[in-house]
Amino acid sequence: MSGRRLKLEPLSRDGFAAYGDVIEIDGARHFSINQGKIERYHDLARVEIDSEAGGRPVISIMTCNQTTKLPCEVTVVERHPSGSQAFVPLGPGRMIIVVAAGTDDPQAEDFVGFVAEDGQGVNYRAGTWHMPLICEREEQRFLIIDRAGAGQNCDELIFAPGTLFVDG
Amino acid sequence: MSGRRLKLEPLSRDGFAAYGDVIEIDGARHFSINQGKIERYHDLARVEIDSEAGGRPVISIMTCNQTTKLPCEVTVVERHPSGSQAFVPLGPGRMIIVVAAGTDDPQAEDFVGFVAEDGQGVNYRAGTWHMPLICEREEQRFLIIDRAGAGQNCDELIFAPGTLFVDG
Repeated sequence: MSGRRLKLEPLSRDGFAAYGDVIEIDGARHFSINQGKIERYHDLARVEIDSEAGGRPVISIMTCNQTTKLPCEVTVVERHPSGSQAFVPLGPGRMIIVVAAGTDDPQAEDFVGFVAEDGQGVNYRAGTWHMPLICEREEQRFLIIDRAGAGQNCDELIFAPGTLFVDG
Repeated sequence: MSGRRLKLEPLSRDGFAAYGDVIEIDGARHFSINQGKIERYHDLARVEIDSEAGGRPVISIMTCNQTTKLPCEVTVVERHPSGSQAFVPLGPGRMIIVVAAGTDDPQAEDFVGFVAEDGQGVNYRAGTWHMPLICEREEQRFLIIDRAGAGQNCDELIFAPGTLFVDG
């Protein structure tokens, strides 16, 4: 394990700004609705659908078939050039995030790691390289808001073994 | 309390089809991704943004300031003619849904009531009349996917006192 080892930082809006949005209520613009009964934390993430590629936003749910324990090796990362992709946990549990800016030839050194705590979701900007979603717990479930449409919208980058690891 | 009293039915795709989508994994189309580690339940709700009115989809969070106990009176309903509106609970708890089809002059008799159990979200089709979100528990939190944009996108209908009630 001589490759790059990522230490996970707590997920924050400022730290994540180069890669997308943090979906959380802390620090978000909000206002009361429904005669004051409800507080709306408004417009927390930018839903991107590339106008040239077309397509439409879709709402999906992902569930865990197989857990991944940390530390783990990152064997593949992906990016979606034609749309953003938001993940919001539908229950308690950490979400592990490994990202790099959307350049065409990212190196292991370009990647950073974050851990989302309860109540935090994330929205990858179109083109942001990211480790595919992993689950630490079998029961984990996530709501996804991303793009459906024609055309190639997933680039994969496969790392040589021993290149990139996420610390526990 | 001589008005119409709604009995809540369990929320189901078939029962709700005239009003929008149920966002849940039961019975949904799904496939494996990420080398089989994740199951994706795909495209569970139709995100509508009216092409003439314009606007864009936004992701927001709503939290509860004030709880409502059942039975309760429905004093106002609303509809959003230019876009759909999805509500997905971010934790356990029931969601109470009162809806009517999007006609211009709905009567109390047109409304029906549903109760969403854990794991069920809902997406109101553009124009569907609905009771504003209520919370039964203080800690309830919901993810919202709806439309932001210029123009009037909320019609309200105020009921005379004693017109419409939701049973417990």
